[in-house]
Amino acid sequence: MKPIIAVVGGSTASPEVYAAAREVGQEVASAGAVLITGGLGGVMEAASQGAKEKGGTVVGILPGFSRKDANPYVDIPIVTGLGDGRNMLIVQTAQAVIALPGEYGTLSEIAFALKIGRPVVSLGSWKVSADIIQAKTAKEAVREVMKRIGKPHP
Amino acid sequence: MKPIIAVVGGSTASPEVYAAAREVGQEVASAGAVLITGGLGGVMEAASQGAKEKGGTVVGILPGFSRKDANPYVDIPIVTGLGDGRNMLIVQTAQAVIALPGEYGTLSEIAFALKIGRPVVSLGSWKVSADIIQAKTAKEAVREVMKRIGKPHP
Amino acid sequence: MKPIIAVVGGSTASPEVYAAAREVGQEVASAGAVLITGGLGGVMEAASQGAKEKGGTVVGILPGFSRKDANPYVDIPIVTGLGDGRNMLIVQTAQAVIALPGEYGTLSEIAFALKIGRPVVSLGSWKVSADIIQAKTAKEAVREVMKRIGKPHP
Amino acid sequence: MKPIIAVVGGSTASPEVYAAAREVGQEVASAGAVLITGGLGGVMEAASQGAKEKGGTVVGILPGFSRKDANPYVDIPIVTGLGDGRNMLIVQTAQAVIALPGEYGTLSEIAFALKIGRPVVSLGSWKVSADIIQAKTAKEAVREVMKRIGKPHP
Repeated sequence: MKPIIAVVGGSTASPEVYAAAREVGQEVASAGAVLITGGLGGVMEAASQGAKEKGGTVVGILPGFSRKDANPYVDIPIVTGLGDGRNMLIVQTAQAVIALPGEYGTLSEIAFALKIGRPVVSLGSWKVSADIIQAKTAKEAVREVMKRIGKPHP
Repeated sequence: MKPIIAVVGGSTASPEVYAAAREVGQEVASAGAVLITGGLGGVMEAASQGAKEKGGTVVGILPGFSRKDANPYVDIPIVTGLGDGRNMLIVQTAQAVIALPGEYGTLSEIAFALKIGRPVVSLGSWKVSADIIQAKTAKEAVREVMKRIGKPHP
Repeated sequence: MKPIIAVVGGSTASPEVYAAAREVGQEVASAGAVLITGGLGGVMEAASQGAKEKGGTVVGILPGFSRKDANPYVDIPIVTGLGDGRNMLIVQTAQAVIALPGEYGTLSEIAFALKIGRPVVSLGSWKVSADIIQAKTAKEAVREVMKRIGKPHP
Repeated sequence: MKPIIAVVGGSTASPEVYAAAREVGQEVASAGAVLITGGLGGVMEAASQGAKEKGGTVVGILPGFSRKDANPYVDIPIVTGLGDGRNMLIVQTAQAVIALPGEYGTLSEIAFALKIGRPVVSLGSWKVSADIIQAKTAKEAVREVMKRIGKPHP
């Protein structure tokens, strides 16, 4: 099994955040990891697009009851019907989490990841704990998560 | 149906925090609301004890698969088997949330409550957003939540 | 903590089934147990009405995101947002299950109850296993479940 | 997105059932569909092995909190922590379900699939409804499901 890396962040994204999330997705795929997101738009879509551009596999953990809710870059849509409760599945399934800007949903994912001991790397996201690793670039963010899960990637 | 107020916080509590949570539970019951917690120890147990002392009803949303996990003050143990995912049910079921000191689990509950628009009153808990109402005493915390849900209590 | 008994069945009910479910609810309350249902109409509402008529407590495990979905006899609405996944919580929370006529949702609840070892008493519901106890009247159904959970009721 | 087909059945399997499930997995992969199962042993493992033998992709929706619970043929382990509640996610995520012999857990998956309108093809599994399509061979089972989801496979 390949490692699975989560990218979390807002369901809408500014052009800058979209570009950053896309680059994170590219790096995740290049590092040989599967990308997992909440399957919708904004940061989730940007990261998924990036991962597909590098030949990666994209899992989307959808909140609703239809696979049609997935953004066009999702390979494996998981239809949970759990609403925001699906955030927990994203974090549990990933070996580490990269957080981009987002609102309270993103904060809940960061909090839950910290609670269950998943490494969290932030690229411009919530700064609520010294346990969150701060990164400045997409490359650095992915390098940090791969190092933390014992799969170093240059 | 009576209003339902959630009290969230750590599963262990210092004597000071325990006393504060117990008083919050007493006030919730005195205000005519049902108390809902995660059903375990620490802040959850303290608030439940307080609510029972004032003749209130206590619902415990348990993470595991056995009602025996509930603290002794729970009237209605809901056995979810959802692990920490049960936090979402606590917040969704309550009309408002009172947060006491706790760690990342508490933070995830606060974040989720803010996400779905439940008023959050903090009594010494995480200060991560201006949307959180800060209270200084148990009485003030309960007065604030009852006011926000349109059931003012003196 | 009082025992909790689940009543499951269709969300619509013929007058005969409604009357039977209502009597089951009355008997559950008279036996000193809390009633738990899926909180909506049909069999769920009938049993809830019966339980309230005898001064019982009624828990409704709602599939959606609003307490307003509950039938008027629910005291404690639990807002799960889990869709039909909430069926599992009903069965896990109850010490035993009484099944009335219903469709595939009811069958899934019976199957899940049998899987986790909850006694299932059927009053005109699915006959898919010899592990299901068949009852002919509401009184008999409640007597059977109370006996199985070690709380005999005449 | 490729179609996703669920295979459900017991977590232990006789040699005959194991062989049948493995052949079903092979056929699912050959038909160009992703296989989804509960990720554990028995029928789930057999189908997963078969799918991998034909170069398919295998998703395992795990009940617990660790990816290590997955059988060795799972490519994408989804860590739900939902216990048997994860059965619902399997059925919701799939466009159709093939049921092999199993006990009450399998029955709950069949019931839930029928409830939400997923075609169910049985290969020696529970016969509780005329809505279940009966198949005699692995090939026939997969041909039936692919036909029902509008992706005919010879």
